Amino acid sequence: MPSTPLPADPTPATGQVLDLGADVTTLTAAICDIESVSQDEEALADAIEAALLPLAHLDVTRDGNTVVARTSLGRDERVVLAGHIDTVPLTAVPNLPTRRVDDELWGRGTVDMKGGVAVMLRIAAEVTEPSRDLTFLFYECEEIDGRFNGLGRLADTSPELLAGDFAVLLEPTNGAIEGGCKGTLRAEVVTKGVAAHSARPWKGHNAIHDAGAVLTRLTAYEAETITVDGLDYNEALQAVGISGGIAGNVIPDLCTVTVNYRYAPDKNVDEAFAHVRHVFDGFEVTLGDAVDGARPGLLLPAAKAFIDALGVPVNPKEGWTDVARFSALGIPAVNFGPGDPNLAHMDDERCPVQQYVDAEAALLRWLA
Amino acid sequence: MPSTPLPADPTPATGQVLDLGADVTTLTAAICDIESVSQDEEALADAIEAALLPLAHLDVTRDGNTVVARTSLGRDERVVLAGHIDTVPLTAVPNLPTRRVDDELWGRGTVDMKGGVAVMLRIAAEVTEPSRDLTFLFYECEEIDGRFNGLGRLADTSPELLAGDFAVLLEPTNGAIEGGCKGTLRAEVVTKGVAAHSARPWKGHNAIHDAGAVLTRLTAYEAETITVDGLDYNEALQAVGISGGIAGNVIPDLCTVTVNYRYAPDKNVDEAFAHVRHVFDGFEVTLGDAVDGARPGLLLPAAKAFIDALGVPVNPKEGWTDVARFSALGIPAVNFGPGDPNLAHMDDERCPVQQYVDAEAALLRWLA
Repeated sequence: MPSTPLPADPTPATGQVLDLGADVTTLTAAICDIESVSQDEEALADAIEAALLPLAHLDVTRDGNTVVARTSLGRDERVVLAGHIDTVPLTAVPNLPTRRVDDELWGRGTVDMKGGVAVMLRIAAEVTEPSRDLTFLFYECEEIDGRFNGLGRLADTSPELLAGDFAVLLEPTNGAIEGGCKGTLRAEVVTKGVAAHSARPWKGHNAIHDAGAVLTRLTAYEAETITVDGLDYNEALQAVGISGGIAGNVIPDLCTVTVNYRYAPDKNVDEAFAHVRHVFDGFEVTLGDAVDGARPGLLLPAAKAFIDALGVPVNPKEGWTDVARFSALGIPAVNFGPGDPNLAHMDDERCPVQQYVDAEAALLRWLA
Repeated sequence: MPSTPLPADPTPATGQVLDLGADVTTLTAAICDIESVSQDEEALADAIEAALLPLAHLDVTRDGNTVVARTSLGRDERVVLAGHIDTVPLTAVPNLPTRRVDDELWGRGTVDMKGGVAVMLRIAAEVTEPSRDLTFLFYECEEIDGRFNGLGRLADTSPELLAGDFAVLLEPTNGAIEGGCKGTLRAEVVTKGVAAHSARPWKGHNAIHDAGAVLTRLTAYEAETITVDGLDYNEALQAVGISGGIAGNVIPDLCTVTVNYRYAPDKNVDEAFAHVRHVFDGFEVTLGDAVDGARPGLLLPAAKAFIDALGVPVNPKEGWTDVARFSALGIPAVNFGPGDPNLAHMDDERCPVQQYVDAEAALLRWLA
């Protein structure tokens, strides 16, 4: 690429340029090669903003290192395409710059999720007359604590920028559509006993022994598979922590089992916690952190059109993702993007380049 | 008491004087009122040494803040009377000096175990022609980490000073004889699983859930009562700790249950650990710290004479005590002393003064 003189700008822009006319694989590699570990996304946000500003059919807004570009064509429907531009840190021997090995592109971000960002930018550049109004959301800080999340910030401060009838999050799904996501809550199940010297346990009551009944219920628990909008969500209720005991010669008077309930998006936190209390009926149960999932909304017309146009498999999303942020705003949302999610964050993160090509083609079938 | 001029001595002696001619209750109060929290026993050791040195029938040895006094009358039998001279710390509003309330003496040490120390000093002063040769052991640092224990140090460095046919530890037993003590071992029972994201637990295996079977065995375990030398020891096997889990969204791959086995003195550590491994057959079990108990040895002639002379109840000792240090040297040993052990270390530590009188009278019946 030709070098560009740096503008007299107070921001420490690197001046790196993205060529949206390049093929999607080349563009993915270029985006990966602009390192953007969480909270260090400025150079990439600058490059994305600079690449979008010349496009006359888009209104571009910058908020921190989050960039929003929108058409305003008066279409009946508005679709949101969203992707985070940050990555987890590089490996010890840095897995950047990207390398092309046979039919795969290797390196940090090739799966999670700069292929999706490249597809978004290609659509933004190519589809000047989309069938639906489009909103492109390139946001920061998805890989770290949720309070830094650029999408979450916009949802609070400028929800009008997220408005739409349907949203697609271009997280890696191996080219399938993954609908909605499960909710998650943590709760503490507590047993209480009476402390005593462990040489005379009959003077006390062992709270850890009582926790055996809590674990027995967990082991016997049969998690349900719940169908929501045609997708089967596999629920899960598991211990993620246990602690008890204060000294090697004391019968413990307290034992705490922390459980994590991953629940289908047919229920909200209140209903999910009521279920957990029911499972541990007779024990003291307190609610910890919790966040609802998202219904896939695949029966809505906008979603059906998306599914029909793409013609790819449709699966439930097991983990919690940012689609829930759209769901909280009343916008049905799905995940769809290139890359095997099992390779996300891995040292050998890599993606068959055909998945980038296929994802771009699929969205073009829908939107062009 | 008359004030005494301080000697020109490099040790910071307080110059406090003990009058062994006073009655045992007065002497107990005087000993309590010389504060001697663990590692601060010098003033009391000085006073005890000074009180014993004038007694012609005793050879007195000082080792740190441990004082040993012995007769050498060529008797057929040698009896050891032992007591620690330290206490746990005072209460926030200091529970010293002692207070006499009705028939009880209140204050730190009145139970654990300065009444016993007073009885020892009275016997040392009064019984100049004992029926058996006598060794009096006044030792430091029983209430803290065992490596500071004065009796333990002497057992290592000068075992000849501990030699005897029978030992009586004047720890509080409410005036009964408590024989021997149980051994104690700790072991870790470990379950191992496979870590996974808690949204997809079927990709892993939950080690905490597996620990439920460990707790079920503990709950179902029926501890034995084992008779040794005529005393019934109540064994116990209890969890004293449990831990597992690394994060709120991770299926834990490790859970550790720490168990404490209190075992009758009919077995040693190896046999006790074999039993624990048997209980948790199929689980990974590792041995932690352990120490054998002590057989009461009540069938031996010296012990029988003691029991016959005293005519008080004989019970097993549930907890581990320093009698095990004598047992390790091949000397049968029992606990016998004034004070309710349930009041030891308590804010309201106190003892009926009649128990001091009775304990002194009982030992006089045996030794005079």
